Amino acid sequence: MIKKSLLTVLLAGTCLTAAADEGQWQPYQLAELQPLLDAKGIKISGEQLADLGSYPMNAIVSLGYCSASFVSSKGLVITNHHCGYGAIQQNSTAENNLIAKGFLAKSLAEELPAGPQERLYVTELVQNVTADVTGKLAANLSDLERFEAVETNRKQLIKDCETDANYRCSVVMFHHGLEFYLIKQLMIQDVRLVYAPTEAVGNFGGDVDNYEYPRHTGDYAFLRGYVGKDGKPAPYSTENVPYQPKRFLKVSADGVREGDGIILAGYPGTTSRYRLAEEIAFAASWQYPAQVKTFNQMIATIDQLGATNPELKVKYASVVKGYNNRMKKLNGLLDGFKVTDIHAIKRQQQQQLQQWISADESRIGFQKAMADLAVVVKKEQDYLQQTYYFENAKRSDLLKAAVELYRWSMEQQKPDAAREMGYQARDAKMWQGRLKRLDTSFAISMDMALWSEQLAEYLAQPEQVRVAVLDQSLGLKAGMSQSEISKALSGWYEQTDLLKGESRLAWLDKTPEQFRQSSDQFIKTAVALYDTHMQLEQQQKSLNGELLKVRPAYMQAIIAYNKAEGRPVYPDANSTLRITIGSVDGYMAADGVYKTPFTSVAGMLAKEGPAPFDIPAALKQAYASKKYQGYFYADLAAKQEQSWVCSVVDCPKAKVTPFNSVPLNFLSSADTTGGNSGSAVMNAKGELVGLNFDSTYESITKDWYFNPAITRAIHLDIRYVLWLMQEVDGAQNLLSEMDIVREE
Amino acid sequence: MIKKSLLTVLLAGTCLTAAADEGQWQPYQLAELQPLLDAKGIKISGEQLADLGSYPMNAIVSLGYCSASFVSSKGLVITNHHCGYGAIQQNSTAENNLIAKGFLAKSLAEELPAGPQERLYVTELVQNVTADVTGKLAANLSDLERFEAVETNRKQLIKDCETDANYRCSVVMFHHGLEFYLIKQLMIQDVRLVYAPTEAVGNFGGDVDNYEYPRHTGDYAFLRGYVGKDGKPAPYSTENVPYQPKRFLKVSADGVREGDGIILAGYPGTTSRYRLAEEIAFAASWQYPAQVKTFNQMIATIDQLGATNPELKVKYASVVKGYNNRMKKLNGLLDGFKVTDIHAIKRQQQQQLQQWISADESRIGFQKAMADLAVVVKKEQDYLQQTYYFENAKRSDLLKAAVELYRWSMEQQKPDAAREMGYQARDAKMWQGRLKRLDTSFAISMDMALWSEQLAEYLAQPEQVRVAVLDQSLGLKAGMSQSEISKALSGWYEQTDLLKGESRLAWLDKTPEQFRQSSDQFIKTAVALYDTHMQLEQQQKSLNGELLKVRPAYMQAIIAYNKAEGRPVYPDANSTLRITIGSVDGYMAADGVYKTPFTSVAGMLAKEGPAPFDIPAALKQAYASKKYQGYFYADLAAKQEQSWVCSVVDCPKAKVTPFNSVPLNFLSSADTTGGNSGSAVMNAKGELVGLNFDSTYESITKDWYFNPAITRAIHLDIRYVLWLMQEVDGAQNLLSEMDIVREE
Repeated sequence: MIKKSLLTVLLAGTCLTAAADEGQWQPYQLAELQPLLDAKGIKISGEQLADLGSYPMNAIVSLGYCSASFVSSKGLVITNHHCGYGAIQQNSTAENNLIAKGFLAKSLAEELPAGPQERLYVTELVQNVTADVTGKLAANLSDLERFEAVETNRKQLIKDCETDANYRCSVVMFHHGLEFYLIKQLMIQDVRLVYAPTEAVGNFGGDVDNYEYPRHTGDYAFLRGYVGKDGKPAPYSTENVPYQPKRFLKVSADGVREGDGIILAGYPGTTSRYRLAEEIAFAASWQYPAQVKTFNQMIATIDQLGATNPELKVKYASVVKGYNNRMKKLNGLLDGFKVTDIHAIKRQQQQQLQQWISADESRIGFQKAMADLAVVVKKEQDYLQQTYYFENAKRSDLLKAAVELYRWSMEQQKPDAAREMGYQARDAKMWQGRLKRLDTSFAISMDMALWSEQLAEYLAQPEQVRVAVLDQSLGLKAGMSQSEISKALSGWYEQTDLLKGESRLAWLDKTPEQFRQSSDQFIKTAVALYDTHMQLEQQQKSLNGELLKVRPAYMQAIIAYNKAEGRPVYPDANSTLRITIGSVDGYMAADGVYKTPFTSVAGMLAKEGPAPFDIPAALKQAYASKKYQGYFYADLAAKQEQSWVCSVVDCPKAKVTPFNSVPLNFLSSADTTGGNSGSAVMNAKGELVGLNFDSTYESITKDWYFNPAITRAIHLDIRYVLWLMQEVDGAQNLLSEMDIVREE
Repeated sequence: MIKKSLLTVLLAGTCLTAAADEGQWQPYQLAELQPLLDAKGIKISGEQLADLGSYPMNAIVSLGYCSASFVSSKGLVITNHHCGYGAIQQNSTAENNLIAKGFLAKSLAEELPAGPQERLYVTELVQNVTADVTGKLAANLSDLERFEAVETNRKQLIKDCETDANYRCSVVMFHHGLEFYLIKQLMIQDVRLVYAPTEAVGNFGGDVDNYEYPRHTGDYAFLRGYVGKDGKPAPYSTENVPYQPKRFLKVSADGVREGDGIILAGYPGTTSRYRLAEEIAFAASWQYPAQVKTFNQMIATIDQLGATNPELKVKYASVVKGYNNRMKKLNGLLDGFKVTDIHAIKRQQQQQLQQWISADESRIGFQKAMADLAVVVKKEQDYLQQTYYFENAKRSDLLKAAVELYRWSMEQQKPDAAREMGYQARDAKMWQGRLKRLDTSFAISMDMALWSEQLAEYLAQPEQVRVAVLDQSLGLKAGMSQSEISKALSGWYEQTDLLKGESRLAWLDKTPEQFRQSSDQFIKTAVALYDTHMQLEQQQKSLNGELLKVRPAYMQAIIAYNKAEGRPVYPDANSTLRITIGSVDGYMAADGVYKTPFTSVAGMLAKEGPAPFDIPAALKQAYASKKYQGYFYADLAAKQEQSWVCSVVDCPKAKVTPFNSVPLNFLSSADTTGGNSGSAVMNAKGELVGLNFDSTYESITKDWYFNPAITRAIHLDIRYVLWLMQEVDGAQNLLSEMDIVREE
């Protein structure tokens, strides 16, 4: 337990671990973070937050890909609209489009199945099993053997745990392999759609506003968990009854004010906070720019061909949308690196660590850990540079399909359990779906244009990144132009039967021998490339085995250093349950531009325009007729000045936001990442005040480094939700089911 | 003199006159505004500010088109870079481009003539001459006679005043004709260029940042006034000596902080603050949208033809730049009307006035004034609607030239003094220049495209806006398409000699008879349209004569009403010397976006990019090497909370801007408009702290209505200027000439 006097160091240092609101803490760590909670004015004790069986953590839910929370004794769950999207889509038809018009079940009977794949997971046990996973590994294992031994041990632990079919178990790596935890989650299998606002509310601003603030998105939806009459999880059945969670969150109708401390709990996906400066340098100088170039090439090609051919435009709309989203993130990363010199910060942090190590001979082992990691990291970068253009050179969707189909066929030769993940019997349906999808999202002219472009790019690279068997199969020669490549490959599309959905699917049932006898150019190439692919996969696994050795050693150094300084260390995010503590707060987005922490319905109305900025008439009417239900604030300003800590730059010391409306979205300094979508945002007493749903553009680099001055998560204000339920959507049935508290 | 207890009303009301920082006061009015000065913490008394012979007003200078101020005992003048642009351009050649590289005279001898047209004007006398202008007008004059009688009286007063060639006199209308003032200005004729930063500093952000904030423009230049050895104004001569102003501004090296009161003095051009709601409605619903449509059409046509023809693109570059600037202003006006319902505010104000009038029978005359004004305003709007498309239908630059040439020829038949303004002997040079300019900014294909487009638009209008003689001359028939019109007119360009510069200029010397005998289609059309043009001009003059009667009567009502409420009324801006009092302050630019009042060199560096965002290496080097000279502020925040008044919406009550740099631009709530460029911004003691140079996009509607919550002027921080002079440009000679004071 850290001493209270050390809190200043904990909060203020640009150190290797937590500064200010940084920290995606494992719940058990909260017990040692009482000074942080006190500083933020959090009223729930760290001990209580650490207890997964108590309020509020027992109410926190995972959807597997998003976060959520229970808000009634009858298993009512609130999450983001974009997290409930699948469930809404599942129940939508062209005639009855619930996405567009929204949905509200006025009784349990009206609630709709969210789909066979939807699950609610409640984390009940988190147990350190490091000893069982890596404690008994022989010292002389090769890197590949180490990797496989760890996988085997993890699988065994999972198997032992999953004897109860009501639970899903996983063995998750923490601190990059330094620790492993067994996570046991109750798995509710019957999930239903209860309520979703119209798309105009739930996805207001759409992709245009993705990563943007000011924001006005009503990103929420309600689901409900059902179980068998015995109270145990069961597949969907009309006989099922609502699940009764041990705990559910109270909802605060008062919301929060600027400067208030908040608790955010959910399942953040992945961060890279403990990377070497060299890894950031590689990403910033090589990896991201290479990706930017590739995505820009593909986007330009799709846009160009689509401009004169509406059919092509439609077929590749979702592809190009994905690329554009990825580009926004890449641009955010590169722009962010310009604003905050993360490489320099990491270098400085490494120097500090280095100095600490050098100060005591007993720390010589840590010295080796740093050096070893640098060597393996370099090896990993070499591997990425070696294979980047080869991977892109297989850009044809038909070639990709052929490669996967042959791999599938090869894996089918083994017993199911021995097959590589993704090629087991339970994956057959997924493959059928993916192969079918090509019918609506493929066109020869586009495939050839995109592929030949990437092949030309591949040919333009130095000799050593070329793969002979690919060159032979495709007849590639140095110096070929894109049009020469196109010409050489155009015949391939005429001779293949992969174009037709039925014959493409038929390959799922063929033997490797049938593949090897095929004269289809795509299939022949897939067969020819197989050995290369297997060899690269082994190489990748060896590399992972090696990293399993050197990253934990480096993490040990970091933890030892911080422990010596009295600072706890949180592990990188890994899709497990975490708690982060922040404050409601704005930020300086640029010189002269301060983003205030709240947006409002008035601001939404000012942004009205064509979709995705259209606003439902009912909302406008309710607001215009001043049916505010106590959610109108003449001034949402902090009641009193709140001081808060900024370690990197001077931050505003007192900020008061003018306000004359119903609050809509708000910002906090909580530490989040992908996977935190739908996470409960709670006030000092652990009452629900909002849902996390996005981060600002300036925060995109936070996966590498948390800059407390500018890193802000974007939340939906629960008061907007309550107001919509009351005045716009008539969801009184749900309001009366929830425990809504109001103090003021 | 208003009573102190009435100040709250003065500052807080959404009344017909001043609210909060609104008010472009005539200097003499400051004597009655002591409570306002006290509230803002201004230390100079109102009496002193009212005295044009005292500090600081005697140091305030006009360039005729911009504002400026004396900053040394040797006639050194500071103004905006964009105001000194002509003087810099005048001395630039392709080989020695002072615009790009900047200029600094290290001694008086190195100073360059700013050009024969440059003047410095110092207002020495402002005298009410209303009695002489309108006091003796006969009651039975027709509207046209009234207009002409007023003009005659004004000309006589000017003639009497200008007996001393060292002075320029003018008789200026205030309150739209309710009052007239004789303004006597000392006219310094020998102006020289002393110092201008590089274009990269002085025009940083260029047109891209026009009307934008955050801003980082070093918009300043130094000039110097020279006079004969006798101390009297004289044309340029190497014998001349620096002018010794009675007063010059001290310069504060401390600058201002957020919340500080400021004094701004200069020559604002035109505002329309006392218009009827009906006039705003007409502008918002008809006039601006019509202009938007016309400009958009022309911009699209120029862009389209220019896209495939680089020569056309260059020729019309400055034309389209002007149109784009105008479009930005129009869009700002229309966007602003959406944010602030100025029409509703004006309607409400008129209702208040109406109620006040109705409350007392003796005010019946005011009732008539309002009704009369409404009638004439309607007539004016009808005139604009009637003639708008006819005016646009003459879009051809050749037709415009022909029309002006024939008018010129006709006016030459009269004695010079009797000629219409703009067609007198002294205007010959201007006409030669304009006619020559067509050589570089004209192309037949573009002229025909733009003209036929506007003719088609004209033909698409209702019959009654058509002008028969135009239709006949051009052979226009209802229903003709643009391509039919083009076809009909294409022959005109082949037969005319107006295309060649020399023959075009030759028409300046021809007699009306020669015009009438010409077979040139453009000349023939100009001759044919002459009577129509004369008739429209008479109509316009009559309308002005009528407005000279009804607007003053309405202003009398407004002034009487406000006087009854204890509020002084400032006149609309009319290019005469004014003082405005404001505070250094940010503003809410949108829901969730607060623009902080200062920008910095750090922010400029973050915006670096291709021109107009390039930054001189010397500036970067000086900043990087931390040569701050005391102008670096770790925190530019207000020392203590400053409360300020917001009457329309709730405003931030306390705002503190984080700051770790050299300040660059700042915002204030001062009331400015076009013409205020270069105006001195002074601290509470009247020391120079900045130069006004622009307004924010959200402020564009302020010419109609001053919304104190969002109206902000953009100023250049004098500390940035002093830092550049010291550390980047080596202007120590000027620094030592100035009286730079520092308190802290």
